[in-house]
Amino acid sequence: MADLDPDFRQSIPDGDDRVRRICTHCDFVDYVNPKIVVGSVARWEDKFLICKRAIEPRLGYWTLPAGFMEEGETVEQGAAREAREEACADLEIERILAIYSIPRISQVQIMFEATLRSQDVRPGPESTDVKLVTWDEIPWDDLAFPSVHWALKQWKSVEGQAAYAPFGNPAGSEHLTHG
Amino acid sequence: MADLDPDFRQSIPDGDDRVRRICTHCDFVDYVNPKIVVGSVARWEDKFLICKRAIEPRLGYWTLPAGFMEEGETVEQGAAREAREEACADLEIERILAIYSIPRISQVQIMFEATLRSQDVRPGPESTDVKLVTWDEIPWDDLAFPSVHWALKQWKSVEGQAAYAPFGNPAGSEHLTHG
Repeated sequence: MADLDPDFRQSIPDGDDRVRRICTHCDFVDYVNPKIVVGSVARWEDKFLICKRAIEPRLGYWTLPAGFMEEGETVEQGAAREAREEACADLEIERILAIYSIPRISQVQIMFEATLRSQDVRPGPESTDVKLVTWDEIPWDDLAFPSVHWALKQWKSVEGQAAYAPFGNPAGSEHLTHG
Repeated sequence: MADLDPDFRQSIPDGDDRVRRICTHCDFVDYVNPKIVVGSVARWEDKFLICKRAIEPRLGYWTLPAGFMEEGETVEQGAAREAREEACADLEIERILAIYSIPRISQVQIMFEATLRSQDVRPGPESTDVKLVTWDEIPWDDLAFPSVHWALKQWKSVEGQAAYAPFGNPAGSEHLTHG
């Protein structure tokens, strides 16, 4: 389709203070900022919604409904959309549970508490299975990502509290988030 | 410098589900996701740090220290960096005050509560003036952005509370955030 291969040089644009990727062909500046992942700890009564990943990375492992925020939506709408896409789930987004910064992969993950409006869930295209499980049934050894652990454990630590300050990265997690 | 002008077509990349900008010359896919702004309501005793903008948009108007998050930092580090750059201020970031979604300009703004470790503040390159002002001295009619109003008013509404759920976009603000 295209007549050239992409060809970026590393250079500081006029008026900027750091190196960016700039296209040698057309001077397009590829400003790279952290991307936002929006997701939720979503409950139906005493059960949690988990999804078995149909895609890499971590294909076959269990995760919370979450994914990249798109343009034209709010963070709450993005979190609800991801649960719809991954688990055909209808969520009521309630409040912010945590914000994780993962510089290693240039992500900021915004996790919400949510409730399901119906227990009717089924796999979307990015999941091979979805389940509603009690706390004791969570497959701790087969969770896809550290932040899935963090969100569930942090949710448990404030269970039933009327108000709490949202969480950030857990202490001691720097080896997972940086470098 | 470059031999061609940028030339993007609108098309759906393989394996994707929505239209992206793709370079006609080199098939570079310009994935655009919302950008993260990190900032803070930062206090020294009963005073608030505000900065007079030296740059567009809203040059000459007062704002809270805030700006685009960069790669390689956490949201808290980004908020502290912005206050250092704009007001030479040394912040202790305390907790999340609010997350605003502004699809109209493709931004998510994460605002923190913070305290100043010292009252020594002075303008950085993006400010013509910086001040520590009491609540009654805030120049309400000369604030740069709606979200500066929101953050200050929401801060006031939970002043002194040990814990609260962070805020989102205020009700009735859709005309400012969407379309």
